[in-house]
Amino acid sequence: MKSILFSFLFLSFFLVRAQSSDKESIKEIYNQALSKGKSYDMLYDLCVNIGPRLSGSPGAAAAVEWSRHKMEDLGFDSVWLQPVMVPHWVRGQQEIGRIINSKKIGTREVVVTSLGGSIGTGPSGISAGIVEVKNFDELKQLGTKNVQDKIVFFNRAMDPTKINTFAAYGGAVDQRGNGAVEAAKLGAVAVIVRSMGLGVETYAHTGGMRYVTGVKLIPGVAISTQHAELLSKLLKEEKDLQFYLETHCQILDEAPSFNVVGEIRGGEYKDEIIVVGGHLDSWDLAQGAHDDGTGCVQSIEVLRLFKAMGYKPKRTIRAVMFMNEENGLRGGAKYAELALKNKEKHIAAMESDRGGFTPRGFTMSATEGVKTIIRGWKPLFEPYDVWDFSQEGGGADIGPLASQGVPLIGFLPDSQRYFSVHHTSEDTIDKVDKRELELGAASMAALVFMIDKYGLK
Amino acid sequence: MKSILFSFLFLSFFLVRAQSSDKESIKEIYNQALSKGKSYDMLYDLCVNIGPRLSGSPGAAAAVEWSRHKMEDLGFDSVWLQPVMVPHWVRGQQEIGRIINSKKIGTREVVVTSLGGSIGTGPSGISAGIVEVKNFDELKQLGTKNVQDKIVFFNRAMDPTKINTFAAYGGAVDQRGNGAVEAAKLGAVAVIVRSMGLGVETYAHTGGMRYVTGVKLIPGVAISTQHAELLSKLLKEEKDLQFYLETHCQILDEAPSFNVVGEIRGGEYKDEIIVVGGHLDSWDLAQGAHDDGTGCVQSIEVLRLFKAMGYKPKRTIRAVMFMNEENGLRGGAKYAELALKNKEKHIAAMESDRGGFTPRGFTMSATEGVKTIIRGWKPLFEPYDVWDFSQEGGGADIGPLASQGVPLIGFLPDSQRYFSVHHTSEDTIDKVDKRELELGAASMAALVFMIDKYGLK
Repeated sequence: MKSILFSFLFLSFFLVRAQSSDKESIKEIYNQALSKGKSYDMLYDLCVNIGPRLSGSPGAAAAVEWSRHKMEDLGFDSVWLQPVMVPHWVRGQQEIGRIINSKKIGTREVVVTSLGGSIGTGPSGISAGIVEVKNFDELKQLGTKNVQDKIVFFNRAMDPTKINTFAAYGGAVDQRGNGAVEAAKLGAVAVIVRSMGLGVETYAHTGGMRYVTGVKLIPGVAISTQHAELLSKLLKEEKDLQFYLETHCQILDEAPSFNVVGEIRGGEYKDEIIVVGGHLDSWDLAQGAHDDGTGCVQSIEVLRLFKAMGYKPKRTIRAVMFMNEENGLRGGAKYAELALKNKEKHIAAMESDRGGFTPRGFTMSATEGVKTIIRGWKPLFEPYDVWDFSQEGGGADIGPLASQGVPLIGFLPDSQRYFSVHHTSEDTIDKVDKRELELGAASMAALVFMIDKYGLK
Repeated sequence: MKSILFSFLFLSFFLVRAQSSDKESIKEIYNQALSKGKSYDMLYDLCVNIGPRLSGSPGAAAAVEWSRHKMEDLGFDSVWLQPVMVPHWVRGQQEIGRIINSKKIGTREVVVTSLGGSIGTGPSGISAGIVEVKNFDELKQLGTKNVQDKIVFFNRAMDPTKINTFAAYGGAVDQRGNGAVEAAKLGAVAVIVRSMGLGVETYAHTGGMRYVTGVKLIPGVAISTQHAELLSKLLKEEKDLQFYLETHCQILDEAPSFNVVGEIRGGEYKDEIIVVGGHLDSWDLAQGAHDDGTGCVQSIEVLRLFKAMGYKPKRTIRAVMFMNEENGLRGGAKYAELALKNKEKHIAAMESDRGGFTPRGFTMSATEGVKTIIRGWKPLFEPYDVWDFSQEGGGADIGPLASQGVPLIGFLPDSQRYFSVHHTSEDTIDKVDKRELELGAASMAALVFMIDKYGLK
């Protein structure tokens, strides 16, 4: 009995010691990030000096070199490139969207932006009538006789009453992704999709769209929510409204590009890898500050913080700048393919791709066992207002690692401002708050620290 | 046994019914605020068409009329003004702060702003040497011999490692409030205070400072954190650095002003009042968007939402626009004085004065009994990411009601961006996110709804 009691006390003592030491280590990580952090400086440099970096573009190539040099300069143990072929889509000159000869407002330019991956109308443009629908069911009910030779206008708004704005996005984005295919099946000549934004905005949101084999390729554009409202209102009174659309985008041959990987090697279990990453490519309309410059610099910052603190990890910590999340996910697929081929043992992968806002928690796609371990650490994060470990989810780029049984973790910041900038001309450095960014980097580093120290078994 | 079991089941049924109905009512409040909210439109109008509204200024008078008309137009049952005399301080022409003849950088203008309530130097300005201190202990140790005829430079930074930025503010703001008095006691001719900001900023933060009877009045200014760093660096090498300060502010005679009060009267217990408010006055440097336009429009929005939903409160709900929080707190004091005089029964007072950011929870200054009741409602708020009911606190304007035993509640939004704009030229409408503002108004309305429905006993 005595020895059991002794063992128990002994164990408790060490548990309390361990907790207290974890608490101190995490405090040190946050202090370092908030008082001497470099994530904002890095992001400023990436946004202002590199700027837009759509897959296949000169900007993307420059960003690859930028990341490599950045991680080399920071003295990571290894930095290398993983070659990957990516789609190469170019916008060409500014799109024209024009309501023609409305009885009510005459001829009026409206704000449109080509959807990524779309074919262009070319310089002769497309003039046609418009039919508005809210979803694919409505479209099918209209049938070929009402859709043939028309432009289909998908106008289902993101639901503002959803508190999780990603859920609102998920409830509307099918129009953008599959609208052109579904409309083309019924003979439409183009699609206009209401921008994936929550408010009444003057600018449009681009984003990826798909074609499928066997269905005619027709052009797709997004229209600003403000002009979506205008167009919808007009269509109620003028069923025969005409619209002119002119886009110059082109799908070019696939282009060579790279994931950029940097790591600091572990001591005790150097073959066990913890990945933390974001995607380096962005849309072409702005600097890709929140999407996903923040995720990239936060990932680099995790490793930099460990070095700055003199922390020698037990496991190998790897920062990955994935290429081509936006219109292909080739980088994520390539990373997983190489991990399998090289028999690498990934014990966890974390992605930051929901913007650089104040942290709230982490999502997880993992076994219940892993979730239980991570949730057990929640009290260590609560002093930093990081409290939500309840939601399912990983990240697009790390997704392909799931089939290798790797636990996936998504950094979860506040979601309220994200869809004001997402895929728009507004996604610029001035929309990022330095302190919020630093808090996010610190939160990510703190969780990577815990995983490194204790593993996930 | 059977009847006890029956009673238990009966009670449970009603509890579950009540909870489910509360859940639905709160959902309706959020839906209304997020899809048909008016708080942002009101704030835009206040910021753009009224603008700065320092106590005693024409802007403050216009804001009083604006609030009265706004609440009348919204059809509140009663709207009235409470007269109150307020301090009247004016800035006059732009301040000059100038480092003179530094061996290293020559003569250089630096960004300074007069502290509210300070006397001016007048057009002849003040030229003097500078001594830097971090706190009042250091100042006292320097003593009269080192301080006499000098400008004292208080340069203790807000601690960026504090997660609660209000705690960081609280740990530094004594320099601004009492610096001039403490320095004057040792013969200083003026004080320069490091701005109450967390980053390296190019602009300065104003804010209130105090004088006390019997101590000479000397001018006080804040310097931008960027120039505080520059000045501190120079002083390390040039102890004899000279500084020129010219400010034109003046303390005028007290001026008449008003609190603006609007209410919708309760049915069942109309004599029980629930107050929700913010302060209408702002500093003069900008539009007072986050400080505290957001609190004002959110308070009006609470009542407007109830009317829009057709909700008839049991108790009387009152929106109060307090005057003169920034440099006197006269409005808050007057409101409490009149409540006592008129024998009004306030069952709760809520204030929003921490910016219009994403809601996190509510602070409370109340009995344990009241705290327990409110904390019992936490599960109803968690679906809206409103989870922190742990912290002590009310609000400056409602503070004087505490002595009448009124439970005080503070709206608690995310605090990370507040001190980038607080008391500066940056506190403008473009820094407010519509959706975050609406979420805050909905959270406040939901808590007022619960207090109205169940009381706090």
